[in-house]
Amino acid sequence: VLLVRRPVGIPQPQDFALDTVAVPPPGDGEILVRNIYLSVDPAQRGWAADVSNYSDPVALNGPMRALAVGQVIESNAEGVDSGTYIYGWLGWQDYTVITPSAILTRIEAPTVPLSAYAGPLGINGMTAWLALSTIGRPAPGETVLVSTAAGAVGSIVGQLARRTGCTPIGLTGDDAKAARCVERFGYDRAINYKAGDVGAAIARAAPDGIHVFFDNVGGEILDVVLRQMQTGGRIVQCGTASVASWSPPPTGPRVEREVLTRRLNWGGFVIFDHAARFSETAHALAEMIRNGELTYEEEIEIGIEGAPGALARLYAGENQGKKLIFIG
Amino acid sequence: VLLVRRPVGIPQPQDFALDTVAVPPPGDGEILVRNIYLSVDPAQRGWAADVSNYSDPVALNGPMRALAVGQVIESNAEGVDSGTYIYGWLGWQDYTVITPSAILTRIEAPTVPLSAYAGPLGINGMTAWLALSTIGRPAPGETVLVSTAAGAVGSIVGQLARRTGCTPIGLTGDDAKAARCVERFGYDRAINYKAGDVGAAIARAAPDGIHVFFDNVGGEILDVVLRQMQTGGRIVQCGTASVASWSPPPTGPRVEREVLTRRLNWGGFVIFDHAARFSETAHALAEMIRNGELTYEEEIEIGIEGAPGALARLYAGENQGKKLIFIG
Repeated sequence: VLLVRRPVGIPQPQDFALDTVAVPPPGDGEILVRNIYLSVDPAQRGWAADVSNYSDPVALNGPMRALAVGQVIESNAEGVDSGTYIYGWLGWQDYTVITPSAILTRIEAPTVPLSAYAGPLGINGMTAWLALSTIGRPAPGETVLVSTAAGAVGSIVGQLARRTGCTPIGLTGDDAKAARCVERFGYDRAINYKAGDVGAAIARAAPDGIHVFFDNVGGEILDVVLRQMQTGGRIVQCGTASVASWSPPPTGPRVEREVLTRRLNWGGFVIFDHAARFSETAHALAEMIRNGELTYEEEIEIGIEGAPGALARLYAGENQGKKLIFIG
Repeated sequence: VLLVRRPVGIPQPQDFALDTVAVPPPGDGEILVRNIYLSVDPAQRGWAADVSNYSDPVALNGPMRALAVGQVIESNAEGVDSGTYIYGWLGWQDYTVITPSAILTRIEAPTVPLSAYAGPLGINGMTAWLALSTIGRPAPGETVLVSTAAGAVGSIVGQLARRTGCTPIGLTGDDAKAARCVERFGYDRAINYKAGDVGAAIARAAPDGIHVFFDNVGGEILDVVLRQMQTGGRIVQCGTASVASWSPPPTGPRVEREVLTRRLNWGGFVIFDHAARFSETAHALAEMIRNGELTYEEEIEIGIEGAPGALARLYAGENQGKKLIFIG
């Protein structure tokens, strides 16, 4: 799946094209991987954009950058055996030739279903765990508000916050998702932000204010929540999914007075800064899944032909659970 | 000096009135203080405003809340001797009856000029020290940008950052202040933000970006600096002096993408949260003044009649150094 046009805002199907080429043999120090589960992540929008970001833009007419789970089928790299499953930078393609530096996690012997390594044990689960613990720092008894609460990250944040003894409150875009937040993901209550005045609904759900806001959306929801933060509250900025375009940057009510008078601590989180902790975090999350302490949902499409439209569908909020593409 | 009208934006002389009443005798547990140096602080604008803030609004037709240095002239409170100098919540008035809870610092035996206890050893110096060390956390070699760099707080931040081995860069509103920043306050260079494109000037002064922004102004300067922060940079929000009115909140370019992609850590600082550290901090700063390691400037007006117009003059940036009113 090639990126053939620089997306304006949310990547659309026409920004991509399918192309077929021969599988190249792996060179010295390289490995050939057969991809199995392609990951669809909100962050791919930023990777495909032209504007400076935390990573270089994906090259035009090159394969779309993506995480995936695959299996090594031929290895010329020391220490990587043929047959090993891996999670890493495999791209939206059927086969990939990489060096070992593209591997995020080696899956020596899968102890949970393979697809989980691209979801709750992949960047989604690791983001939930590491962003909550390093920036959110929730204490027992605190109120933790989470946007995109039924999503691949938010569904795990709710469960982790609950486990810490907090009161997690979810924000999500429809009533069915709100119900799943409460029934499955540990949320004390969940708010459909499309069903009326979200500020009033948050104030009813958390009359004493919010201690930790785990925000994946930015925009107007952030504007409202900033003004309901507790003194000394923490905001984890993990995504800005609700803002359709950043060039030029849209305007909003100024925030510095809220930061000052509420003594907020507002931090940006990008999972790839924390590679040193991936392995221990994935291990801890796998343990929780095996023990039945952590549940997750996934929505698996079949066939790489679905990839070009997958981000537009993801941003439309149509998916239920972590979005993956199974190719084989 | 009574607050007789709720200020809209910056407090103006007409918002205050002078009134003369008999000095009341101190009751049981109270002390009578003769005020000497009244402090003029940007934060008084917030205290006088109607909107919720980190402290209750000053009552209309009551004395204006203010810090000051004074001398106890009659004490009915245990442990407070007549003759002691104190720094605390004495208000803009000639005499004050308080309980000991209004005292921030007891000045047992002044070792530096008495006025310094309302400036570099008062909330200004303590803010510089504690906000820089708890939120800014500058490491040697880092670039520290400071707004209102020649002011009562900024002039100390520059010297503390220099002492840590950082490169402090000052933003200030005229060339004379910029020169003083470099000559007296430890700044490597200083920018007159009124003298052209401030963003370009900052980029020239700090081509690799800003590690710590110690911000007292907010507004357009903050908008510009946010987009020149280093990855992992810290913003200390200590004031919002450049924003004339917060009701309704003015708009500006949205910030959440900068917080996210630059992994910023943005914290609000209010000095009164840190009362437990006042005494040790004032002691350390006094030591630095005595050793010639810390310099400060003050601009002392004479006579309480100047108080009603003092905040308007402060916000106009006319003062040179910490603004005090000497009454006695």
